[in-house]
Amino acid sequence: MSTPRVKEILSWYGSDNPGTLTNLARLLNHGTLGGTGKLVILPVDQGFEHGPARSFAVNPPGYNPQYHVELAIASGCNAYAAPLGSIEAIARDYAGEVPLILKINNHDVLQDEKDPLSAVTSSVEDAVRLGCVAIGFTIYPGSSHRVHMYETIQQATVVAKKAGLAVVMWSYPRGSSLSKEGETAIDVSGYAAQIAAQLGAHIIKVKLPSAHIEQAEAKKVYEKTQVPIGTLTERVKHVVQCAFAGRRIVIFSGGAAVDDEKVFQEVTAIRDGGGFGSIIGRNSFQRQHEKALAFLKKIMSIYGG
Amino acid sequence: MSTPRVKEILSWYGSDNPGTLTNLARLLNHGTLGGTGKLVILPVDQGFEHGPARSFAVNPPGYNPQYHVELAIASGCNAYAAPLGSIEAIARDYAGEVPLILKINNHDVLQDEKDPLSAVTSSVEDAVRLGCVAIGFTIYPGSSHRVHMYETIQQATVVAKKAGLAVVMWSYPRGSSLSKEGETAIDVSGYAAQIAAQLGAHIIKVKLPSAHIEQAEAKKVYEKTQVPIGTLTERVKHVVQCAFAGRRIVIFSGGAAVDDEKVFQEVTAIRDGGGFGSIIGRNSFQRQHEKALAFLKKIMSIYGG
Amino acid sequence: MSTPRVKEILSWYGSDNPGTLTNLARLLNHGTLGGTGKLVILPVDQGFEHGPARSFAVNPPGYNPQYHVELAIASGCNAYAAPLGSIEAIARDYAGEVPLILKINNHDVLQDEKDPLSAVTSSVEDAVRLGCVAIGFTIYPGSSHRVHMYETIQQATVVAKKAGLAVVMWSYPRGSSLSKEGETAIDVSGYAAQIAAQLGAHIIKVKLPSAHIEQAEAKKVYEKTQVPIGTLTERVKHVVQCAFAGRRIVIFSGGAAVDDEKVFQEVTAIRDGGGFGSIIGRNSFQRQHEKALAFLKKIMSIYGG
Amino acid sequence: MSTPRVKEILSWYGSDNPGTLTNLARLLNHGTLGGTGKLVILPVDQGFEHGPARSFAVNPPGYNPQYHVELAIASGCNAYAAPLGSIEAIARDYAGEVPLILKINNHDVLQDEKDPLSAVTSSVEDAVRLGCVAIGFTIYPGSSHRVHMYETIQQATVVAKKAGLAVVMWSYPRGSSLSKEGETAIDVSGYAAQIAAQLGAHIIKVKLPSAHIEQAEAKKVYEKTQVPIGTLTERVKHVVQCAFAGRRIVIFSGGAAVDDEKVFQEVTAIRDGGGFGSIIGRNSFQRQHEKALAFLKKIMSIYGG
Amino acid sequence: MSTPRVKEILSWYGSDNPGTLTNLARLLNHGTLGGTGKLVILPVDQGFEHGPARSFAVNPPGYNPQYHVELAIASGCNAYAAPLGSIEAIARDYAGEVPLILKINNHDVLQDEKDPLSAVTSSVEDAVRLGCVAIGFTIYPGSSHRVHMYETIQQATVVAKKAGLAVVMWSYPRGSSLSKEGETAIDVSGYAAQIAAQLGAHIIKVKLPSAHIEQAEAKKVYEKTQVPIGTLTERVKHVVQCAFAGRRIVIFSGGAAVDDEKVFQEVTAIRDGGGFGSIIGRNSFQRQHEKALAFLKKIMSIYGG
Repeated sequence: MSTPRVKEILSWYGSDNPGTLTNLARLLNHGTLGGTGKLVILPVDQGFEHGPARSFAVNPPGYNPQYHVELAIASGCNAYAAPLGSIEAIARDYAGEVPLILKINNHDVLQDEKDPLSAVTSSVEDAVRLGCVAIGFTIYPGSSHRVHMYETIQQATVVAKKAGLAVVMWSYPRGSSLSKEGETAIDVSGYAAQIAAQLGAHIIKVKLPSAHIEQAEAKKVYEKTQVPIGTLTERVKHVVQCAFAGRRIVIFSGGAAVDDEKVFQEVTAIRDGGGFGSIIGRNSFQRQHEKALAFLKKIMSIYGG
Repeated sequence: MSTPRVKEILSWYGSDNPGTLTNLARLLNHGTLGGTGKLVILPVDQGFEHGPARSFAVNPPGYNPQYHVELAIASGCNAYAAPLGSIEAIARDYAGEVPLILKINNHDVLQDEKDPLSAVTSSVEDAVRLGCVAIGFTIYPGSSHRVHMYETIQQATVVAKKAGLAVVMWSYPRGSSLSKEGETAIDVSGYAAQIAAQLGAHIIKVKLPSAHIEQAEAKKVYEKTQVPIGTLTERVKHVVQCAFAGRRIVIFSGGAAVDDEKVFQEVTAIRDGGGFGSIIGRNSFQRQHEKALAFLKKIMSIYGG
Repeated sequence: MSTPRVKEILSWYGSDNPGTLTNLARLLNHGTLGGTGKLVILPVDQGFEHGPARSFAVNPPGYNPQYHVELAIASGCNAYAAPLGSIEAIARDYAGEVPLILKINNHDVLQDEKDPLSAVTSSVEDAVRLGCVAIGFTIYPGSSHRVHMYETIQQATVVAKKAGLAVVMWSYPRGSSLSKEGETAIDVSGYAAQIAAQLGAHIIKVKLPSAHIEQAEAKKVYEKTQVPIGTLTERVKHVVQCAFAGRRIVIFSGGAAVDDEKVFQEVTAIRDGGGFGSIIGRNSFQRQHEKALAFLKKIMSIYGG
Repeated sequence: MSTPRVKEILSWYGSDNPGTLTNLARLLNHGTLGGTGKLVILPVDQGFEHGPARSFAVNPPGYNPQYHVELAIASGCNAYAAPLGSIEAIARDYAGEVPLILKINNHDVLQDEKDPLSAVTSSVEDAVRLGCVAIGFTIYPGSSHRVHMYETIQQATVVAKKAGLAVVMWSYPRGSSLSKEGETAIDVSGYAAQIAAQLGAHIIKVKLPSAHIEQAEAKKVYEKTQVPIGTLTERVKHVVQCAFAGRRIVIFSGGAAVDDEKVFQEVTAIRDGGGFGSIIGRNSFQRQHEKALAFLKKIMSIYGG
Repeated sequence: MSTPRVKEILSWYGSDNPGTLTNLARLLNHGTLGGTGKLVILPVDQGFEHGPARSFAVNPPGYNPQYHVELAIASGCNAYAAPLGSIEAIARDYAGEVPLILKINNHDVLQDEKDPLSAVTSSVEDAVRLGCVAIGFTIYPGSSHRVHMYETIQQATVVAKKAGLAVVMWSYPRGSSLSKEGETAIDVSGYAAQIAAQLGAHIIKVKLPSAHIEQAEAKKVYEKTQVPIGTLTERVKHVVQCAFAGRRIVIFSGGAAVDDEKVFQEVTAIRDGGGFGSIIGRNSFQRQHEKALAFLKKIMSIYGG
C-alpha cells in the first residue's frame, strides 16, 4: 500500500493517466527506499558512452549485462537504467524483479565535440515490449544540438505518457556557449530543471549546483532579488523550486566525487534541501561487488532507508 | 526477486515479450501468495452481470468501487478484476497498490437468452492508460454466439500482447446446445480450457468440473482410455492437463458453494490437483468485511500463503 | 450564435473540417472581444524562453503557472497560450474556462546564435488531450534553420487539421542573412505572412512592419508598382493583402514598446489597416495584477470590445 | 480507354499498385497530349520560392491562386503543380477538372546558401485529402543537404505508393561540390536521373544536359566507351537511358530560355531523343493570358498534340 | 530441421519474436553453409555508392540486377543484399530462391566529405512487401553525422523487429575525428561492434581489425589489462567478445585485399577467432562469373561448407 508521502507526490501529476502514476508508484515503492519518497537508481550506459574496455575492464564481470541488473536487485535500488542492448539481454530472465528504465538516447566518444548530441537508440515501443516502467534520456541544454534533443524527448514523451510510462530526464548543461564552470552554475541548473519540467518530465536529474552565476542577465535578477544560494542545501532548494515550486521529482548525480565521505555529505545536503534522491553509476559498478553493496547501503541509510 | 517456481511458470510463455512476462510476474509476485506460483484473484463484475441491488444490497459498502479494491489490497489478493467503470473509479487513487485486471467484456441479464453473448465494454488501450497488468474476458463455448466472442478475444489478445499485458480468459461453457449439467461436465470443462489456451490466454479460469460427461463422442474416449475423473482432485488434474499439459495457468471459481467448509475442500482439491488458484467474487464481497478477510486468509493458507 | 462577421471569417477556410472551424469559432467568440472578429491573446512562454528567474522574479506569483491562466480569464482575453509544462499544470483545474493554445515549439537562451531555431516541445496529441483549441508555433524565416521549422510546422499542421484544431503561426523573420532593420522590413513582413499562409496557418502573427525594403529584387518591384507603404496603417493593409488578399486572420505583436500610449496608437493602426488583433505577453504579466487588467481592458476597447 | 502507348508506359511500373497506375493513367490521358505518352505540366510555386511581389506583380491576376489552375485547364496541360496553400485555395472549386500535383517541398530565398535544401511544406496525406494524382518534390544531388532530401522523398514515396499516388521528382544537381557547369553536365544529369529512379520516382524531371563531363572518374568511362553525347538529342537519349533504359518517364525543363524559338528547338530535341515532355512555369504564367495559351499550344503541337 | 548450432545461436535472441527468429534461421539454414552457423553474404550496392559505370563496366553483365542475384544463388551464398531498385527488379522472378537483405540506406559520391552520411533509401515496409528476410544498413561511428544514422537505424529496427525481420548492421568507423589507421584500430572496432549490439543488431558486420589502438583513454586500459591482440585471430576474438561476449553474430568484410591467398588467410583467422562469416562484394561480382564461383566456393570450404 502506498504511503501518504508517495500519494502526495503522485498528486502533483494531475495531467497524467493512472498508468503512468502506477509506474511512478512502482519506482517509488520498490527497494530499500520504497515508500519514503526518496530514490536511488543504478544507471549503466558506459559501454556505449565510453566504450566497453574503458567501462568494464576494471571489474570484468561487468562485460556481462546480467551483472548490473543483479547488482541493482541485490543493493535494493529503486530502479536499473540502461540502453537497449543491455535491457534486451536481461529483460526476459529478470522479468518483474526490479523496475527498469530504458535509456533511449546515448552518446559515444568516437567524435570529439564541443557541442554534444545524444542519439536516440531505442524507443517507447521497446520500453513497452521489454516491461520497463520508464524511459530515460539526456538533454544537453547549452549545446548547439539541444533542439534535436528537446525534439527527441518531446516525441518520446507524448508516446510514453500515452503508454502509461514515466519519463526520466537527465538535464546536463554543456556546450560551446557555456564555460566549464557554467555547466553547474546555479542559474543554469535552475534553468535546466525548468526546461525539463516544461518538456513534461516526471523525474528530473541534474548535477549538484555551485554558487557561480553564468548568465549576465540572470546575475542581475539573482542579485536584485537576493535568492539564497550560499550553501549546497540552499542551492538544492532553489533548483527544486525552479521545477514548478517543488512539484516535480528532482534527483541529483554525485558528480565526479572520488572520496566516499564527500559523497555522503552531498547526499545529506540533497536530503536537507528537499531533493528526492541520487543516481549512482560508475561509483557503484566499477568497485568490487561487496564494496558496491556497502556503499549503496550507506547512501540509502542517509535518505532514511 | 522471483522464486524458482515463478521463473518456471514464466518459462512456459516463450512467445511473449518480456513486457507481458513482467506483468505476469507482477501478478505472481504480489500479495500473500506472492512467489508461490499460486493465485487468488478478487473479481467484481456483478454490478453489470446481475445488477447492482442483487450484487451489493447484502453488503451495502460494495456499492462503492473503492470498497472492492481495498478488500483486494487488505486481503492480500494477487489482483483485482473489474469492468471499465469500476477500474476508472479507483485507478488514480490506488495507483500501484494492487495489480489490476480490466474485464473488457460483460454480460447483463436484461434479456433472457439461451445463448449468451458478452459485450465488449472496454479495450486494451483502456487497460494501458489505467495501469492494468492484464485484460480479462469471458467466452461462452457452447453458445451460438461463441464465434463473435472468440473473435473479440482474438483481436484484443494481439493488441494486449504487443502492449506487454497478460490475457486472462474466463471460459464458461453455456448455451442452447449444452444441458445444464453439461456446463460443468469434465469433457466440456477440459474442452473449454483448451479453447482458451488455443486462443492465446495466459491465465485460464474455468468452473470446477463434475464427473458428468456431456458429449457422446467424448464419452467413448474417456471410457476407453480410463481417464481418472472420479475425485475432484483427479478432475482438476485432467483440466490442467487439457491446457497444454499444465503449461498454462489454470484457476478455478468456487461455483455456487454456500458452505465455507465445502469451499476449503474444493481449494484443497484444486491445490492437490495442480490447479494454480482461485477466483473468488461474491463469496468474498457479499459477506461482512472482517469475515471476508478471514475467509480469504484461510483460502490462501491452504494454497501455502 | 456566431455573428455575421465571425461567419464571414470562417467562410475563408473552405478546406478545413468543421472541427477546426468550431475551434476557430471558440477563439473568436470568447471573452471581451467575442463576436467582433478581433482577438487579444495572452502568451506566457518566458520561463522557457528567458529562464525562470528572469521572467518571474519581478512578479513572483508568476512562478506558479496558475497565475497566468487566471489573468487571461480575469482580463477577458480570447485565449491563453503557453508551453506544455505550464498547460499540463492547469488544464485539469481550469478545464473549459478559457480557450487554450498549446505553444508547441520553444527557444531557450542558453546558446547564443545568429540563426535561431525553436525546438518542438509538445505536440498536437498533447493539445488534444489537454483540451486546447489550437496549436501555436514560431517560424524564423531568414534563419539558416528555417527548413527545420517549416517542416516541423508542416507535420504538426497536417495532424492538427485532422484533429480539428486551429493553427496559429508566429512568423518572425530573423537570421544571419537579414539586417536588423530587415527583420521588420515591409517586403520581408509580406513574404513572412505569405510563407505562413502557404504553410496552411489559420492565424498568422507578425511584427508591425516598417517602411524599409530589405531585398534588392523586391525593391525593384515595390518601386515599379508603387505599393503604398508610407503609413503604419498602409503597411498593415499590405501585409494583410500578402496573406491571400485578406482572407487569413493576421494579428500583430506590439514589439518592445515601453510607452503605453504608443501601444494604444499601434493598436489603432492595426485596427484601421484591417488587422485582426494583438498578442500581448510580458507587457501584461510582468506588471502588477490590477494594472495588467486595466492595460488589457484599454486595448480591447480600441478594438471595439 | 488507354492507348497502346499509355498501356506500354504503365507496364513499366510492375511494382506499383493499380491505384498508382490509375493516377499515372490520369496524368497521361488528360489534356491536349492525352494518350500520346507525352506530357506538358504547369508548375506554380514562385510565391514561396521567390516571394509574392516578385512573382505576381508583373501579371497581378496571379496573386489569386485561381488564375493558375484556370490557365492549366484552358491550355490543355496534363497537370497543374503547386504548394499546399495554393492547392487548398482551389481544390474544392476545381475538383476533377485537371490532375493536380501537390509540390510537397519548397525553398525560399530569405537565406543565401551554397548548398540548397528544400523544406517539406505538405504531405502525402494532404495530397490525398485534396484529390491530387501525384506528389512532387525537388532533390538537389550534389548539395551537402542531399541526404535530408533523399530521406524526405523516401518517406513520402513509400506513403504515396501505398496511397495509390504517383511520385514526380525534380532532380536538380546543385551544391558546393559541383561547378556551375557541372550542374547540367551529361554525367551528372545521368547520375541525377538514376538516383531519382533508384529512389522510386515514376516521373523524373531534369534539366537539359550539356556536353560537359564533371567527374573525373566518369570522364574516363564516357571516353572509353564512346557514349554519343554530341547533340542535344543524343544527350536526351542518354539521360533517358540512365533512367532504367527508358523505362521511366523523364521530362525536361526549358531552363532560362528567353527566346521562344530556342524553346521550341529544345522541345524538338526532347521529342527526338525519346524524352517524355516538358514542364513550363514562369515562361507561361508571367506572360499575358492569350500569349501563354498560344505558347503552350505550340509546344504541345511539337509533341504531337 | 535446425542443427544444434543454429538453435544455440537463436537462443541468444530472447527478446525477439519468433518471426524474427524464423528469418534468422532462414539465413543460417540457406546455401552451402546452411546449418553450420557460418555465413557468406553477397552485397551489391555499388551502382548507388560509386555510380553505375564505375561499378559494372569491368564486368558488363553486372549492369543487369539479375546477374547478381543469380550469382548469389549459383554460388550458394546465404543471402543477397542490395538497395531498393535492384531488389525490386528481381524480387518477383527469383521469389524464394535466396534470402534477400534490403540495404535500406546508401551513400553516393556526388559530394566529397570527411564525415560520411548514408541516406535512407528504402524502408522496412519495402522489405516486407518484397519478401526480404532482413534489412541492412550502414553506420559510420566517428562521423559527425553518426547520430543521424544511429537514429535511422533505431527507427527501422523497432519496426523491423515488430515485422519479424532480422537486422544486419554494417558498422564502419569513419570520419574527421579518426585517423585513417584508426578506422580499423582494435579499440575502435570493438567499440563499433558494441554500438551495433546496443542498437539491437542481430548480425554485425565490421572490418578486420588491426593491432593499432586509436584512442588514448582506451590505450591505457588495453595496456593495463593486457588484452591479447597480437594476431588477427586474437583480434577477431576480442571484437566478438565486445559484442555481448560472443552472443551476437559478427561477420567481417575482407577489406581491400586484392590477393586471393590473403583473403583465404583472413577467412581462416575469422573462423579460428570465432567469427561467423564474411561478406564479399566487389571481390566477387567484378570478376568473371566462373572465377567468382570458384572464389566463393573456396571461402565457403574454409568455413566448413
